[in-house]
Amino acid sequence: MFEEKLHQFEPIFYPRSIAVVGASQNKLKFGTRYLDSLIHVGFKGKLYPVNPAGGEISSLKAYPRVRDIPGPVDYVMVAIPAKFVLQVLDDCAAKGVKVVQFFTAGFSETGTEEGRQLEKEIANKAKEGGFRIIGPNCIGVYSPANLMPYGPMPVLGQVGSVAFISQSGGHAGSIIEMGMRRGIHFSKVVSFGNGCDLDSVDYLEYLAVDPQTKIIGAYLEGVRQGRHFFQLAKEAAKTKPMMVWKGGKTEAGAEAAASHTGALAISDTIWSAMLRQAGVIKVDSLEELADTLLTFQHYLPFLGHNVAIIAGLAGGGGGESVSSTDACTSVGLNVPPFREETRRRLKEILPPAGSILRNPLDMGGVGGFVDILEKTMEIVVADPEVNIIIINEHMDSLASFLSWETLGQMNDIFIRLRRNQEKPIVLVSRPGLGSEQRVALERKLSDAGITIYPSLDRAAKAIANMNWYFRFHRGWQ
Amino acid sequence: MFEEKLHQFEPIFYPRSIAVVGASQNKLKFGTRYLDSLIHVGFKGKLYPVNPAGGEISSLKAYPRVRDIPGPVDYVMVAIPAKFVLQVLDDCAAKGVKVVQFFTAGFSETGTEEGRQLEKEIANKAKEGGFRIIGPNCIGVYSPANLMPYGPMPVLGQVGSVAFISQSGGHAGSIIEMGMRRGIHFSKVVSFGNGCDLDSVDYLEYLAVDPQTKIIGAYLEGVRQGRHFFQLAKEAAKTKPMMVWKGGKTEAGAEAAASHTGALAISDTIWSAMLRQAGVIKVDSLEELADTLLTFQHYLPFLGHNVAIIAGLAGGGGGESVSSTDACTSVGLNVPPFREETRRRLKEILPPAGSILRNPLDMGGVGGFVDILEKTMEIVVADPEVNIIIINEHMDSLASFLSWETLGQMNDIFIRLRRNQEKPIVLVSRPGLGSEQRVALERKLSDAGITIYPSLDRAAKAIANMNWYFRFHRGWQ
Repeated sequence: MFEEKLHQFEPIFYPRSIAVVGASQNKLKFGTRYLDSLIHVGFKGKLYPVNPAGGEISSLKAYPRVRDIPGPVDYVMVAIPAKFVLQVLDDCAAKGVKVVQFFTAGFSETGTEEGRQLEKEIANKAKEGGFRIIGPNCIGVYSPANLMPYGPMPVLGQVGSVAFISQSGGHAGSIIEMGMRRGIHFSKVVSFGNGCDLDSVDYLEYLAVDPQTKIIGAYLEGVRQGRHFFQLAKEAAKTKPMMVWKGGKTEAGAEAAASHTGALAISDTIWSAMLRQAGVIKVDSLEELADTLLTFQHYLPFLGHNVAIIAGLAGGGGGESVSSTDACTSVGLNVPPFREETRRRLKEILPPAGSILRNPLDMGGVGGFVDILEKTMEIVVADPEVNIIIINEHMDSLASFLSWETLGQMNDIFIRLRRNQEKPIVLVSRPGLGSEQRVALERKLSDAGITIYPSLDRAAKAIANMNWYFRFHRGWQ
Repeated sequence: MFEEKLHQFEPIFYPRSIAVVGASQNKLKFGTRYLDSLIHVGFKGKLYPVNPAGGEISSLKAYPRVRDIPGPVDYVMVAIPAKFVLQVLDDCAAKGVKVVQFFTAGFSETGTEEGRQLEKEIANKAKEGGFRIIGPNCIGVYSPANLMPYGPMPVLGQVGSVAFISQSGGHAGSIIEMGMRRGIHFSKVVSFGNGCDLDSVDYLEYLAVDPQTKIIGAYLEGVRQGRHFFQLAKEAAKTKPMMVWKGGKTEAGAEAAASHTGALAISDTIWSAMLRQAGVIKVDSLEELADTLLTFQHYLPFLGHNVAIIAGLAGGGGGESVSSTDACTSVGLNVPPFREETRRRLKEILPPAGSILRNPLDMGGVGGFVDILEKTMEIVVADPEVNIIIINEHMDSLASFLSWETLGQMNDIFIRLRRNQEKPIVLVSRPGLGSEQRVALERKLSDAGITIYPSLDRAAKAIANMNWYFRFHRGWQ
């Protein structure tokens, strides 16, 4: 059954040949952008532009119809007006295509009888023709290991263990983009739009057994087979942390969802309860989704809710100590007092005035001294009460009076500690001016498995989500 | 009374001469950094380094003691260990100094009897000596119109109408920094730490009558004269929108606050109720504070909660339509249907497939066409149901397939509409790679009075805050 599922999805995430129906001489058309993106990132398989005019498109021989293509075709991308799609599907059947992805919209999401009818027809054609459909009304697949970019986005991120399925092509694109910037490494992503054939349940069945996938995220506006979906999710979440962002949680949002993917409204309360019972994390925004995916990617497996907070690296950490504590405790994390031994050792190296030797620790102006910072970190990490360390490092503030070289040395301390011991080290740094040095430093930290959150509220929420997950699945301690 | 208050605070925010006690040859010491920042931004008044060693500091003649300075001294900054401060204050009294700001910490916030005693003594010395104290344990004043930087931060932002008072020097620095990046223009900021003499109540009295200040923000961990403070706030908020971020809202956070500024805990519930009754907005994070300050700065005065949302400028706006609606309606904003006339006109210019002609409007792939975008915007703005327009523009996504020139043209449409009509135009764009082009574009939009929020949730919350304020003060309609 596992083998079968993996086999069935092979042409979806690892096609060896792709035809793009709707590529043309017009570089702005989506069909052309799909094709050009594949070329740009160096897709290794065969690529076939399909256009009635034939000729050459983006330096590749174009074929008038799919059935004219000489070699086998695993995957067909369709980006032409809806009224022309049925004939394309007949060709796909004749050609023995395995999967057809529809960028094309104008189906059930239009709310018209005509649109609903056309969607039924394409689903029937798939059944009869022996191929599967991704979409319609979607961007499709992102499979970096197979050098498949996300539709018209001509970039590939690093390959990793995070999978994401989405009823919104836009949100999937956003999380891929965020991932490239913040270091979320995907195994595969799929935006499946109306899901007229392959639906959330199918993708989830696959991801549950996909050996490349260790963490599963989803954006959903509704599910057709609710019972089946939640059973599957419960099963999958036992071994792979799973989180769902549910769109349409307000009444007005649900109405918007009906126009978007034709999703039926289930109340947010019911969704929340079902997810909770399945041991699936519920997130409420794209930002929380990205933060939580990153947290699992970097700190898996981790269970513990006693947080040590280091503030005042850039001076003035008193206020941050207060609001950091608020942020942590209001989502159920603990900020326990340091042990007496820890306080005694800190007292030996930190100045009495301006610093606050409790947890949160306000280093008060000496946070930028590399030696003191290193000793401080070692002392805090050694406190047996502490499970996880959050460092309130605001890079651009520090950079206003320290050199980037010094900042590099400070962060090397965190990287060393991340490597040499088990307690997670996480960083908080507000978005800054996006200087080259900062981007490089963030990349280095991310490569070392350290997440950088833009605010303590967001760090705390993501850590609390991880805690909830492990407590649910490993029992509340 | 007004005149008197303005006169009293003149040397605080507009001193003509400043002495820095604790400046030295060591460039890393805070005293030196205070002095160097003043020099760096070109402070126009007299500057006097004070150091027992005399000589020259940062190319200025240094004086062993404040009383040795030849000319008058309005303002003294103190950045030396606490045990040396009493003698400095005697000198200040002898010299006829008007105000002394203490970076120096080690007073009541230490929780020791000794610290409390020393704080009382400096407050007494001020009373006897006829000068006022800012602090102790604070960064002090930022007064860009007087070319006074924020303590050691060697930069000045544009002068504006937003004032901010803070019990945390770190948070005040953060909001100033955010302001420079996002275009919050301050009249004045003060971090007053323990507030042993001048306290929140004093600063608020001044800001209420300060003609340069139109919007007031505060970070507070506690107030000494609660009743007086809330009465003042209620009075001030009648004419100047006011918002408070309260630190120490959780029990653990309140404990941290006690170590920070020695603030007494009042429960968050009571604070919330008091602020609400005073017509003062309560914000819950630095981000919400910055967003709300910007919203008032750009869109004052504005009352209306019917939001039109434009999604899909970068394609794939269906999911964004759903989550945007969730974001708005969950904070009490309306996303009303467009009028029939609006839909009819939109239908003429937008393609039927891929777009969703309701509110939120998903432009579905043609959002990047400048002509279509301009007509679309004009049609939406003209809908009488619509009070405010939020555009889900994700610059870095757009820049992945459009030129920055085209992006510039798109944003020029928003700028023109912002100038030529009354309905607020706001933008949402996720933080990106911080490219030069994006920074320039954001600056241009900000200068045109358009706020850019990093997420729709944050835009919605800030707009809802503004709505709440005007409904409170102008009556619920």
